[in-house]
Order: sequence, then C-alpha cells, then structure tokens
Amino acid sequence: MKVFVIGAHGQIGKKIVSKLVAQGDQVYAGIRHPEQAEAFEDAGAQPVQFNLLAQPEEMALALKGMDAVVFAAGSGGSTGYDMTLMIDLDGAVKSMQATELAGIKRYLIISAEFTPERAKWPNSLKPYYVAKYYADEWLKNRTQLAYTILQPGTLVNDAGTGKVTLNPTVGGEITRDDVATFAVQAIKTDGTIGQTIALINGDMPIATAVQNTK
Amino acid sequence: MKVFVIGAHGQIGKKIVSKLVAQGDQVYAGIRHPEQAEAFEDAGAQPVQFNLLAQPEEMALALKGMDAVVFAAGSGGSTGYDMTLMIDLDGAVKSMQATELAGIKRYLIISAEFTPERAKWPNSLKPYYVAKYYADEWLKNRTQLAYTILQPGTLVNDAGTGKVTLNPTVGGEITRDDVATFAVQAIKTDGTIGQTIALINGDMPIATAVQNTK
Repeated sequence: MKVFVIGAHGQIGKKIVSKLVAQGDQVYAGIRHPEQAEAFEDAGAQPVQFNLLAQPEEMALALKGMDAVVFAAGSGGSTGYDMTLMIDLDGAVKSMQATELAGIKRYLIISAEFTPERAKWPNSLKPYYVAKYYADEWLKNRTQLAYTILQPGTLVNDAGTGKVTLNPTVGGEITRDDVATFAVQAIKTDGTIGQTIALINGDMPIATAVQNTK
Repeated sequence: MKVFVIGAHGQIGKKIVSKLVAQGDQVYAGIRHPEQAEAFEDAGAQPVQFNLLAQPEEMALALKGMDAVVFAAGSGGSTGYDMTLMIDLDGAVKSMQATELAGIKRYLIISAEFTPERAKWPNSLKPYYVAKYYADEWLKNRTQLAYTILQPGTLVNDAGTGKVTLNPTVGGEITRDDVATFAVQAIKTDGTIGQTIALINGDMPIATAVQNTK
C-alpha cells in the first residue's frame, strides 16, 4: 500500500512511518525541511517536501498515486496560535481537499480525545481544540473521503503496551507508540471507515480493537 | 424589530446599535464588561452581558425573544490568536448555535472581503482569515439560519458616504459607518437572506444596493 504521511517528522508521524515500513508498505514521508530527509531515506521511506501553508492544488501534486493519506502533523507547542490556525485547522482542511483533488479516497487523521465535546475541552488547550474540532467537522461533513478520525487521550512517551480501550467515558493516557500502531492497522481496516474513534491505553489488544470500532 | 447585537461595544457594533435605535428598533446590546452598559442605556439600547466564551445553551438565554441577531464581534488586534480561535471562530459558531437554540431564524454576520478565496488572503492577516472563513462556512453549511454574510473591504473610520459597490472584483476601502448602514438595512431586507455580500465604497446608494444583492 502506498501511504503518504503528512507530518512524518512529528513524534507520532515518525512512529507511523517506521511501522508502515516494517509492514512492507511503500511510505512517503511528508516533511517540512529538507534536512529531515536523510533520516527517512535511512529508514526505508521516501521523503517528500510537503508544505501545509501551500494551496491544496500544490499539495495534491505530491499526493498523486497514493492509496491513503495519514495526517499526523501538528503545529506543536513551540509555535504561536497563528500556526494553530494555519496548520492544525487550515493546513489539515487543505490536505483533505488535496487528497480529494488527487483522486484518493482513504484519509486518516490524528485528532484528540473529547474534541467533539466542547464542554470537556481542557481550559489551557481550548484554542488548540477549536482548531482540531473544525478540522474534524470539515472531514466528516464537507468531504467525500473514506475517513478515520483517531482521538487519542493524553499522549505519553512510554513504551507501547499494545492494548487500548475504545471510546472511554473518562479521560486517560495513551502512548504515542500505541496510537501509531492503531493508526497503521486502522488505515487498512475498512471497518474503521467513517468512524471517529477515541482511544486510551487499556485491556484490549490493538488488533482486536481495530476490528471492533463500530 | 427586536435585534440583539453581539459585539455592541466594537467599532462597527456601536454604529449598528445607534442606527437601529434611530430607526426605532428595540436594540439589545451584547457587551462583555458591565462598565460598558451605561453608554448604551444613554443611547436608548438595552445593554445585556454576553459572553462569547460561554456555551451556546447559556448564550441562548440572552437571545430568547429576539427577531434577529447581528454578530459584529471580533477579538480585535490587541489580543492573541488564541482569542481569534476562541472568539472569531468558535464564539461566532456558538452564537449561531445559540440563535438556533433560541428559536430565532435571522442572523447577520460581519465577515471580511475575500474570506471565501484563500489565495487572496493578505499575508499578515492569514490566521485571522482562517477563523473568519470557517465561521462563514459553518453559517452557510451547518445551520438552518436565514443568514446574511457581509464581507466589507478594508475598514476605515472616515465619515460615511452612503454609497457602495457590491461584490467588487478588486479590493477596496469602506467606512465602518457605511458597513453599519448596510447592515441595519440588510437585516430587514429578505432579499439578502442566504446572500454573501462583499462591499466597498462606491457609487450605488446603500438603500438601492441592499435591494440588489442577488
């Protein structure tokens, strides 16, 4: 499967790339800066410069011929909220439009737990949640994409556990490794199409959970 | 007509309130800070505390019984882009939801010229345009409101001219006074329902222009 990972250099993006490569997929690593390229070549992926500030038509050129697109990008904590608007919201939506322009159906985005429930947004992160909310809403309501929206809980860097709880009623943590494992399986599992899936670490093996998202 | 003006204390908001009062309308001036109340009482409007950071259900209580809602709020240039996300985007969308929850149909929002055309967004204002774009898109596509979207050009503080050009192909300036004049006429003109109207100063009397937006 030819998969384009937007935000390949991010913490979850890197793990998604390496897991896809390990599965034998053809992986195109969308990166912002050319100096990030070498690490991906060494890892067996094809680095591609990809600019989320560009127009959808330009982005679409890089996506042509892919089977699926994974959006794992984020403006990150070190930039201002201007970039939250430009990357996490408008960049994400433009990447959806680019995916459709390129004739690709399958699209998976890494969102965040409780994004659909405004009243539960953590105070200090509210502006970030606004961006993620409107990006997710666009994907669900304004595209024809075969989408999957992953909404992980609080991300931690511990080793992967291989196990999750789906759609928990309370918040929780999940390792970035487990989010990546779930994502690379979900992108190949048709049952996750059209699904918005909240996940935290838990008791269910990921391979089982991916088959039971409905 | 009972009109609730959200962002009544803003530069355009104040002018909309006074023009509505002059027309004989019952005007409810949505204000953030209680100390802004007195000026509106003196002007013949009813000040109402209104918090765009609240949930739609709370906002709806203030809107009950109105015939129309005008959104003239903006986070302004002195706050950060976190407030652009919270007020210009999410605050606006919540006010639309509140309007619907309150059983009101008519809603007019002050947007900005070229908001629908991403490629024309001015570089320094792009993050602001992202917020305005997604708010306008929500209004058009995700509500059942009888909406009007006004997209004025570059706002200036000169005296009103009483004349505009509708849907110009190039950018231009318009006085805040003329935007307010157009708004208070448009809210009572059914022909502007469902219309997205760009306007700059020009040659057509506003009363004529409001009748010719289709």
